[in-house]
Amino acid sequence: MNQHAPSREMFEARLRQIGDDRYHDKHPFHHLLHSGGCNEDQVRAWVINRYYYQSRIPMKDAAFLSRVEDHNLRRIWRSRIEDHDGTTAGTGGIERWLKLAEGVGLDPDYVASAKGVLPATRFAVDAYVRFVRDQPLLPAVASSLTELFAPKIHKDRIAGLLEHYEFANSDTISYFQHRLTEAPKDVAFGLGWVLDHAVSQADQDAAARALTFKTEVLWAQLDALYSAYVAPARIPPGAWHPTEGLL
Amino acid sequence: MNQHAPSREMFEARLRQIGDDRYHDKHPFHHLLHSGGCNEDQVRAWVINRYYYQSRIPMKDAAFLSRVEDHNLRRIWRSRIEDHDGTTAGTGGIERWLKLAEGVGLDPDYVASAKGVLPATRFAVDAYVRFVRDQPLLPAVASSLTELFAPKIHKDRIAGLLEHYEFANSDTISYFQHRLTEAPKDVAFGLGWVLDHAVSQADQDAAARALTFKTEVLWAQLDALYSAYVAPARIPPGAWHPTEGLL
Repeated sequence: MNQHAPSREMFEARLRQIGDDRYHDKHPFHHLLHSGGCNEDQVRAWVINRYYYQSRIPMKDAAFLSRVEDHNLRRIWRSRIEDHDGTTAGTGGIERWLKLAEGVGLDPDYVASAKGVLPATRFAVDAYVRFVRDQPLLPAVASSLTELFAPKIHKDRIAGLLEHYEFANSDTISYFQHRLTEAPKDVAFGLGWVLDHAVSQADQDAAARALTFKTEVLWAQLDALYSAYVAPARIPPGAWHPTEGLL
Repeated sequence: MNQHAPSREMFEARLRQIGDDRYHDKHPFHHLLHSGGCNEDQVRAWVINRYYYQSRIPMKDAAFLSRVEDHNLRRIWRSRIEDHDGTTAGTGGIERWLKLAEGVGLDPDYVASAKGVLPATRFAVDAYVRFVRDQPLLPAVASSLTELFAPKIHKDRIAGLLEHYEFANSDTISYFQHRLTEAPKDVAFGLGWVLDHAVSQADQDAAARALTFKTEVLWAQLDALYSAYVAPARIPPGAWHPTEGLL
């Protein structure tokens, strides 16, 4: 019986395969969005719901920090929070997302209020924050590795939005431009950490499960969006209606 | 029946009275330390145990961040983590505390390992981290307001250490020098936030209880230290023994 865990290379390939199989770049909503097939309301619904995910990422990263005993690891991980929350008022990824919100004709205060966010979006995102707060550090870090697959989707998105939508310009889509440099820095560290720390078969399995879980968190948000806002649209009670929150 | 909460001024005076009555500057261990009455072993025991408190403060602040939905509040609060964890390797309050550890003849790796920390210190500090993670934001912020009383104890400590102990110099006690500017900045924000948000009598009571709880967390650590290392010393099983962790 082989007691050894598969090699570092095989383990990394296993993680990357999860992205090939399950990352949300394959979701029909993204095909619609990037190909210019979304109408104004659908773009707005995406901006509103995705805001909730963005807004919880620094809380997720702070929950991680709160469990890390090594101040050097905390200091490195902290840059993720800085990327999203900014270093001075008006900077950071969350503010850039609110610029996108304005660009698509939404009142940024409405979007920031997180009113109208789909319950299924909240459930998925909150499950992610809870996962990182409650699970051991290895799966908590592994769940961030969807960033391995993010640069491609961001490039596709930047190209698709610029080509197909009037609202898209360097100002409104600056969130994605920044992520092109932020995400690779984060994931280089996160992947190295996971490969270093997943020493047993059980560790590798736990890391793979965590990454799979995270792909589910992302996919579920798009399913909810599609169900609510793509024909035949079924907007759940209390969720954003296209007449609300406009500038 | 008066339904109004006491004025902002009366509430602030109530909070300050808690410090006058219960802050750990009144603990006999601090009198001993600041007056030159501690022997080398007692100073080392203090450095080892207080390190555990220092090391958990950024985790406590991250636990707070993880529950804050307002990215502007998160960004302001984040500076506390930066003060302790630093902005580059080798900077920050935790590294400065390890300089103090070296200065008193302790192996900084031993101190950073948190081996030998008194169980009662762990229990008190862990109770604080848990409090901030689990309580509503108002008591969580209020529990930080012992910093209102910190500048005086830091000044007394700097003067007392420099006067009475050979190890004390600007390098070894730089932790306290930095706190003289960091703590007032933090507490000015924290106090304003608590005064603004404690609008009802019940809110003010909860904030006062939280601050009282925090004074208990600090006091209990010194009681444990006194019991273990001041004559008649009763070092609990597993706790630091004066022959361990030396340079």
